[in-house]
Amino acid sequence: MMAAHNTSEASVFQLEDWSRIRLEQVERALEQWITTEPPVGTGHAAPAALVEAMRYSVLDGGKRLRPLLVLAAHEAVAGSELGAAAALRAACAVELIHAYSLVHDDMPCMDNDVLRRGKPTVHVRFGEASALLAGDALQALAFEFLTPEDGSVDYPTQARLCSLLSRAAGSGGMAGGQAIDLASVGHTLTESELREMHQLKTGALLQGSVLMGAHCAQPQAQALAALRDYGAAIGLAFQVVDDILDVTADSSILGKTAGKDADNDKPTYVSLMGLARSQAYAQELLVQAHQALYRSGLENTRALAALADMVVNRAS
Amino acid sequence: MMAAHNTSEASVFQLEDWSRIRLEQVERALEQWITTEPPVGTGHAAPAALVEAMRYSVLDGGKRLRPLLVLAAHEAVAGSELGAAAALRAACAVELIHAYSLVHDDMPCMDNDVLRRGKPTVHVRFGEASALLAGDALQALAFEFLTPEDGSVDYPTQARLCSLLSRAAGSGGMAGGQAIDLASVGHTLTESELREMHQLKTGALLQGSVLMGAHCAQPQAQALAALRDYGAAIGLAFQVVDDILDVTADSSILGKTAGKDADNDKPTYVSLMGLARSQAYAQELLVQAHQALYRSGLENTRALAALADMVVNRAS
Repeated sequence: MMAAHNTSEASVFQLEDWSRIRLEQVERALEQWITTEPPVGTGHAAPAALVEAMRYSVLDGGKRLRPLLVLAAHEAVAGSELGAAAALRAACAVELIHAYSLVHDDMPCMDNDVLRRGKPTVHVRFGEASALLAGDALQALAFEFLTPEDGSVDYPTQARLCSLLSRAAGSGGMAGGQAIDLASVGHTLTESELREMHQLKTGALLQGSVLMGAHCAQPQAQALAALRDYGAAIGLAFQVVDDILDVTADSSILGKTAGKDADNDKPTYVSLMGLARSQAYAQELLVQAHQALYRSGLENTRALAALADMVVNRAS
Repeated sequence: MMAAHNTSEASVFQLEDWSRIRLEQVERALEQWITTEPPVGTGHAAPAALVEAMRYSVLDGGKRLRPLLVLAAHEAVAGSELGAAAALRAACAVELIHAYSLVHDDMPCMDNDVLRRGKPTVHVRFGEASALLAGDALQALAFEFLTPEDGSVDYPTQARLCSLLSRAAGSGGMAGGQAIDLASVGHTLTESELREMHQLKTGALLQGSVLMGAHCAQPQAQALAALRDYGAAIGLAFQVVDDILDVTADSSILGKTAGKDADNDKPTYVSLMGLARSQAYAQELLVQAHQALYRSGLENTRALAALADMVVNRAS
């Protein structure tokens, strides 16, 4: 995992090179682990049709930002491959939670979206009931990933990862943020209400990814606090940029329907503070993220830094 | 927890007395733990509207069979209150998984049920999107329950409980069984296919409850194997009896719409083997459950035995 760490300060860090090998690992693991094969300790295979819908929603060439954050945070704290099995499992688990949230979010009773990453959404392809169950099963599978029975991850780490992931995903995290989002349609939110919504809806899982990666090693308190701030900053920046892209990008680049939030009368940063101020705010959050990495006292933070840049400067 | 254990063999075990104090504990814990208060370690409160829907679905006077199985299995293995904090958390966690499955199962894209335990279902009361999110958040909350940050449950137990619960709930368990159920409507199943469906859909979580309770103490291999068999027998018996009640009970006693499975052309034990053979099969499974308890070598199994009797002889 340390191949990309170059001790020469002058060298230019190439996020693409760093990401490639890690994405291959993540894709291979997701491909192998989302199967009908019974988990050790049970005798029951998962039904093929359900697993097909689960695989369809996950193995679709997403950007895998959350897994990369897990792996980058782990490498920053570990400075070695110690805990690499845990980090890979955590990386895949956060992606399953993200995938399930998209499946449910796209359903007719929520956003009623028919296109996701350029493909028909799961409920369009497999039907609503299957989409509901596939999402439910993906959430459970995330916790199966975190609790392997092969001794590859020690129990305290398993427990800590389940704790972080459940809190990032649940009523005080992602699901809570979606509930606020749902209730906010057609309402005017203040900037602090909008921030609270996004801290839960998107921020909690992004921050949770960073913290899970860190906890696959043994983080010092100072580093952990700084990584928490880093995660909060990029979590918020991610959503601000999402709102900007909703009005500036077109559907073919986004891989989903652009302009949808505005059409649905959803409060966004752009509708609240305008495009220019939203863009300035995104840059301000990026600076906060870099400052947090500096404060962390960690040396190997170049991947985290580059991921923050990518979050803010992405085109889709 | 040992108050109900009477060493006189001649004494009659009163399930109702045994259950009362444990149900009070479970209800109190659910009441206190499903709140908007931020979990320790995060700064975010859950939105009140979401928590209201979650509480509505859980705090409704269900029979709490799964929590009672957790507590009874724990007492059978522990023979003391050792691990009682873990057992109470496991008891509440399995009930959250059960509750979320009912919320999602009742939705229009699944069973489209408007009545549950005599009350409007969650989507009728709060809307479909809120029902979807409440179910999602309940599943996450189950894992939050299992991973307290107050030191009350040791990490290996937390990890083991998360492993068991995720596998009981996921694609090789409850969600998988619901997917098979979904695909089976209008099809003829063989008895073994029907059994496989129910082992996943209902059996996995009932068996998981027993195993989680056992793992809150330190079960011997022989006891664990026997409790696994016990859980499998009552899991299957539960569904056979459910199918029987669907044709013999009326809606006011069931608290849900009777005759619904037959109307929906769903394969059931009664449709497959007839009423009389189904009733005999339920009794046969009850005998298997009692034999498993005998094989366990555990002394304190009277609550588990009485719960098995209740599962088979219930009227609703």
